[in-house]
Amino acid sequence: MLLDAAREAAAEAVGCRADELVFTSSGTRAVHAGVAGALAGRRRVGRHLIVSAVEHSSVLHSAEVHEADGGSVTQVPVDRGGAVDPAAYGDALRGDTALACLQSANHEVGTEQPVAAVAELCREAGVPLLVDAAQSLGWGPVEGDWSMLAASAHKWGGPSGVGLLVVRKGVRFSAQGPVDERESGRAAGFENIPAIVAAAASLRAVRAEAAGEAARLRELTERIRARVPGLVPDVEVVGDPVRRLPGVVTFSCLYVDGEALLHELDREGFSVSSGSSCTSSTLTPSHVLRAMGVLSEGNVRVSLPLGAAEEDVERFLEVLPRAVAAVRDKLGAPVPGAVVREADVLVVDSLGKRCPIPVIELAKVIGGVPVGGLVRVLSDDEAARLDIPAWCEMRGQEYVGEEPAEKGTAYLVRRTA
Amino acid sequence: MLLDAAREAAAEAVGCRADELVFTSSGTRAVHAGVAGALAGRRRVGRHLIVSAVEHSSVLHSAEVHEADGGSVTQVPVDRGGAVDPAAYGDALRGDTALACLQSANHEVGTEQPVAAVAELCREAGVPLLVDAAQSLGWGPVEGDWSMLAASAHKWGGPSGVGLLVVRKGVRFSAQGPVDERESGRAAGFENIPAIVAAAASLRAVRAEAAGEAARLRELTERIRARVPGLVPDVEVVGDPVRRLPGVVTFSCLYVDGEALLHELDREGFSVSSGSSCTSSTLTPSHVLRAMGVLSEGNVRVSLPLGAAEEDVERFLEVLPRAVAAVRDKLGAPVPGAVVREADVLVVDSLGKRCPIPVIELAKVIGGVPVGGLVRVLSDDEAARLDIPAWCEMRGQEYVGEEPAEKGTAYLVRRTA
Repeated sequence: MLLDAAREAAAEAVGCRADELVFTSSGTRAVHAGVAGALAGRRRVGRHLIVSAVEHSSVLHSAEVHEADGGSVTQVPVDRGGAVDPAAYGDALRGDTALACLQSANHEVGTEQPVAAVAELCREAGVPLLVDAAQSLGWGPVEGDWSMLAASAHKWGGPSGVGLLVVRKGVRFSAQGPVDERESGRAAGFENIPAIVAAAASLRAVRAEAAGEAARLRELTERIRARVPGLVPDVEVVGDPVRRLPGVVTFSCLYVDGEALLHELDREGFSVSSGSSCTSSTLTPSHVLRAMGVLSEGNVRVSLPLGAAEEDVERFLEVLPRAVAAVRDKLGAPVPGAVVREADVLVVDSLGKRCPIPVIELAKVIGGVPVGGLVRVLSDDEAARLDIPAWCEMRGQEYVGEEPAEKGTAYLVRRTA
Repeated sequence: MLLDAAREAAAEAVGCRADELVFTSSGTRAVHAGVAGALAGRRRVGRHLIVSAVEHSSVLHSAEVHEADGGSVTQVPVDRGGAVDPAAYGDALRGDTALACLQSANHEVGTEQPVAAVAELCREAGVPLLVDAAQSLGWGPVEGDWSMLAASAHKWGGPSGVGLLVVRKGVRFSAQGPVDERESGRAAGFENIPAIVAAAASLRAVRAEAAGEAARLRELTERIRARVPGLVPDVEVVGDPVRRLPGVVTFSCLYVDGEALLHELDREGFSVSSGSSCTSSTLTPSHVLRAMGVLSEGNVRVSLPLGAAEEDVERFLEVLPRAVAAVRDKLGAPVPGAVVREADVLVVDSLGKRCPIPVIELAKVIGGVPVGGLVRVLSDDEAARLDIPAWCEMRGQEYVGEEPAEKGTAYLVRRTA
């Protein structure tokens, strides 16, 4: 009875029938099970899968498995604000498309996706759209005529260990892997009843206050978006300024090592995230920032929890400039890379140096070449591929392109300003 | 740090290295992931899987998926006590065996399996043995040189939503499905830290009192085993009398509808389980009772929780005879099936009637045929296939066999007593 009541409550919040919704052990499991089941259910139609380039890793990992298994995948690119263009998404639909996936809002930069418009195009093409609603379900139901939906309770303030998967009636679905009689054969294993009950109750509770809290947090994140560029020089605020989640704001700081900045802010009591390469175990920048083509160095994601206090935001804005300055100070006087002038090209050897050093060295020498002259930055750091073009965009310099070098890659920049 | 500490504590309780143990979202998921990963990792060796006939459904479902995917599966039978014979298990090992699975103890009847002996045979054959230790891990580490182990926290008194999977170093393992960087790539999704910490803490806590509590519960279940046959006529206590879990005792009552008995006991405040067909949604008796060849009708499984009070056990023994008698009373005067004497065979038509009616009707008429005479029971109830032979065994009558009838199946019984 508790499970039935929780399912009714969650279904009401989602806007679906109770028998269309199952509880899984996490949002990730909901996505994995949803993608695998839909692809298998529509295998006769074809094996083409569409995802956006900025999906959560659970969607992208599912796509990798599908591709390794012989399926085909189209990644729809996003604009500099992080959103897909519905028309471009629609163009990716093919006769053999089994499934399309689109997040309701991005988990790193907060940009909302045009789900209703994409759902409409998918519906016309007869292709089910799976919406990863992990970021937005606490704020409200997902609009539009989508076919499947996945979400995660701890994202809306509920407990860990509960996800939900919705498969609308009429969607062909064939659960993969071993199943049992639980959750309509879509989520095997003993149901975590206490956590499921808490998840449904918390969703109802956050929804009751969502409208007011969204307006309040939106004002606070707007404050960060508006004031950070004035407080910190050489900063790029990323993500759509209007169509965005209420509580997330993301910016990148030139000439800053993201890991060091996180530590500075942590010492001041602020726990933030980063998509910088130097904060990830893989040493590559976030795939989201890469797909958007924005600066990844010194990247900071501030997520305001429900109930976040205005004073804390003000104190963050007070602390941030000092923290960034402290990190820049430490990096401020690196030994410049060997600078060699070859004909009309100034060569900066940043081999073996990691983000943000290559960009710092580029910035230091660009003034030393005449307008129209070229700088050739040698780097073997993966982040340079993203951050040198992003720096050019921010500084109004021309990014000419990259070419393989004897070691690493050479990035060519023409001084235009 | 909390996750690392929990992993260290759990590994110590299991008797493995911390880096061999990952947390999953349930015991079922641990089994599914473990079986799939081991089968894939040893695919070059072959695609043969061995399981016992009385494994938990998570193992059997994994085996079904493997078979549907073209693999082969051997089910090793059990004796009437529910245990596999190590020699028979060893005989199932082949050159192309990728994996062998054996539970540490059975979940329905409590019988302990000869894991150490089977592990030894598997080790000699170079085949990894996966032990489903869900039932026993709270009582102590699994003995023997096993290769993989799965367990479930809520079974040892921990929270729902946590399982564990151990893969010893050197076992070829290839995680299947989408994975992420969590839990060594073996259990995708956000870790349920609070529940994992509670799981590890509770395992340590129950282990600290396991020896004393095991002795105490064993005395209580022994009391039930010894006294039920005297208190209730026509009862069969099932499971190994010696090599068994401390807190589980199972018995079956002739001429009783399991569902009705559960309701009677529930009204008295006792929540028990049943493997009878009439209590399952599939209307088939438990696969465990079927594999053991014991009576399934009126089946009752009593699981004593940690700390179960002696008074409660005494009250259960007081209530049980009345509850069984009440159910038998209600069933006691069914209109007997049409009885037709065909030559020397007495035919009982129980078509359309469900467990325990066919056995009741057989019992009512057997006295009416001469010693050496035959009774032919017509039944379309799946439970009859198990319960009529089991009744013959209990009553010392000869079970001759079954044959297809115009409708349902005819079961032939010769009166010998």
